[in-house]
This record gives sequence, C-alpha cells and structure tokens, in this order.
Amino acid sequence: MRLPKKERQRQLKLALQANPFLTDEEMARRHGVSVQTIRLDRMELGIPELRERIKDMAEGNFDRIRSLAPEEVIGEIVDLQLNQSGVSVLEIREEHVFSRNRIARGHHLFAQANSLAVAVIDADVVLTASAAIRFVRPVRLGEKCIAKARVVKSTPHRIQVDVETFVNEERVFQGVFDMYRAREEKGKK
Amino acid sequence: MRLPKKERQRQLKLALQANPFLTDEEMARRHGVSVQTIRLDRMELGIPELRERIKDMAEGNFDRIRSLAPEEVIGEIVDLQLNQSGVSVLEIREEHVFSRNRIARGHHLFAQANSLAVAVIDADVVLTASAAIRFVRPVRLGEKCIAKARVVKSTPHRIQVDVETFVNEERVFQGVFDMYRAREEKGKK
Repeated sequence: MRLPKKERQRQLKLALQANPFLTDEEMARRHGVSVQTIRLDRMELGIPELRERIKDMAEGNFDRIRSLAPEEVIGEIVDLQLNQSGVSVLEIREEHVFSRNRIARGHHLFAQANSLAVAVIDADVVLTASAAIRFVRPVRLGEKCIAKARVVKSTPHRIQVDVETFVNEERVFQGVFDMYRAREEKGKK
Repeated sequence: MRLPKKERQRQLKLALQANPFLTDEEMARRHGVSVQTIRLDRMELGIPELRERIKDMAEGNFDRIRSLAPEEVIGEIVDLQLNQSGVSVLEIREEHVFSRNRIARGHHLFAQANSLAVAVIDADVVLTASAAIRFVRPVRLGEKCIAKARVVKSTPHRIQVDVETFVNEERVFQGVFDMYRAREEKGKK
C-alpha cells in the first residue's frame, strides 16, 4: 500500500537523517514509487541529491588524517574520529570492475577498507600486519560503497580495526584488520 | 671467505636455475663481492639480466588465462599451470608506495596475490569469497615481488588458493584465498 505523500516525505526525511547514503533508487524501491517521485520529494523537502550530500559531509567537521596523505585514501572520507571510527564512500566506476561481468574487483573494496583502517589511527606510521576479509556479495558498476571502520582493540603498538562496507544498507564486505602503529622515527618528537 | 671465480660462477648458475628471480644485488651480498662482479659473471656465463629473464619467462610456454583478461592481472604472469599453480612478478614503483615512507601499500600486494589466485583457476567466472592475509615485512620502492600461487583444495564450486610473495627469497606476504567458481551462465555451453 502506498503512503500518502505527506507521510512518505516524513519517512524519507527520517530515513535520510539516519542514513544519508541512501540512493533515490533504494528509496523508490522501498516506497513503491518512481525515482522521479523521490526526486520531487527531495526537492520539496530541500534535501540535496546523494552526490551533494556526500560532498557536504566531506567538507564537514571531522578529525584530520594523520597516518597518510589525504589523497592516499581510496574513496572519500566523510567522517573521521581518530582512534575511534571513520566512514568513507567509494563509487564503483569502470576502472574498478572486471571487463567481462562489470563486477567490482576485490582489491578495490579491500583498498577502500584498508586505507580507512589506516586513516582512522592517530599515528605517523601505520602498517597493516594481517587481515581477514570476506566478500559478502558481488558489487556492481555504479554502486556506492560506504565503508564504516571501528577501532575495537588498541594497545600501544597493535590496533584492531573492523570494517564493514555497505551498498544501500546491505553489507557487501567485511574485514578485520590487525594494524601496527610504528614507533616515532628518531629525530621526531 | 671468497670463493674462486670459477666456483662462484658455478654456484651462481645453479642458484639462478633454482630461482631465476634472484637479483644481482642479492647474489653479490651472498658471495661478498660487488654487484659489478656479478654482472661480469653473468655476462661470461651468457645469463641475461633479471628484467630480460622475466621477459623471457613471460613469453614462455604456459597455460592461457581463462578467468580474466590478461591485462587485468596485477603484475606479470611468468608461469601458469591452470588449476595447479602460477607465478607473477610485480615491481614496486612510485605509484605503489606511501609518499612519506616509500613502503608499498598493502592493497597492491593484495591485488597481485588476489589476481593471481583468480588467474590460476580454469573457469570463466571466478570470484573471491574470503581471504586471510599477512604482511610479513614491509616492501620498499624498487623491490621485485614474486608471487607464487598454489591450488590446495578444489571442489566443483570452491577452490582454496595459497599465495606466498617473496622478495629475493624472503617471504613478504602470504594469503589464503577462498575462491568461488561460478556456474557457467546460461546461453554458454
């Protein structure tokens, strides 16, 4: 049963507050309406499109990356709380997929998760010691991968970072990264 | 104690037969002589330099990759026995390292190993289900990574591929890949 427009827009607003990465397509599917309808809803509500929302988040207020150069992150960081958590977005483009089936190559999902695991750590030198990863379902051309990292264990030199990657709230990748925080090099404070 | 030249050249020849990926630097270190001496030894023995040896191997006789386009392999395949084993070489260049410490980024080593694990499987569609990986020691700019894959378990749909990556016979990476061989798509034989 379709909801009245007012109720649909109320739910839309709430859903986007809870998860700003929801696509118009996903919201259309949920409500059984056309993508065009969702676009009109967003315009009436003054909610920008996904690309703009991500851009706004990326320009938002979060901690500065310390462990690598910002341009070395694979994907775009949209939230970062050092030594706690981080979120990044990677849109799967032509260069990320196998030519024959348009499925994203595993190492790009790995690279997004791994670089986020590095970025979340507050240290100058961070290396990955080991990782256990799982590709839960294939990711296809055009999908937007939202990686969420969480520091779950931390000692002076070792840090465990769990990363889960979602497309439209469906988990597509998970990884447990055992990271190594190197001592400061001499000469530095 | 240094060996007489004749004995050193005999050992050099044997070592390169056993492991054609040995660098001149590594051989010089082992024999306590200069890199220039090793180069002269090679010339006298008619053994080409590493780059040429790899090129010869890459042009050599091995099985054709079926599961992905050859240019999609990360690194250069120098040996391939489908459903059994494979070897690839990846030289760590500027684009593979962190800018601040010249250490190779983990996802490139992962990509080399993972794409080799795909390439070694004789099927049209191969996906990675999960992997457990370990970065044994940091790899630096200029080092040549030799990945060796071996199929260790195989059922109609799941295949376990173990990959170990070496620099000068020193292991730098290891991974256990659980691969999924998809059924042929309908319409194909």
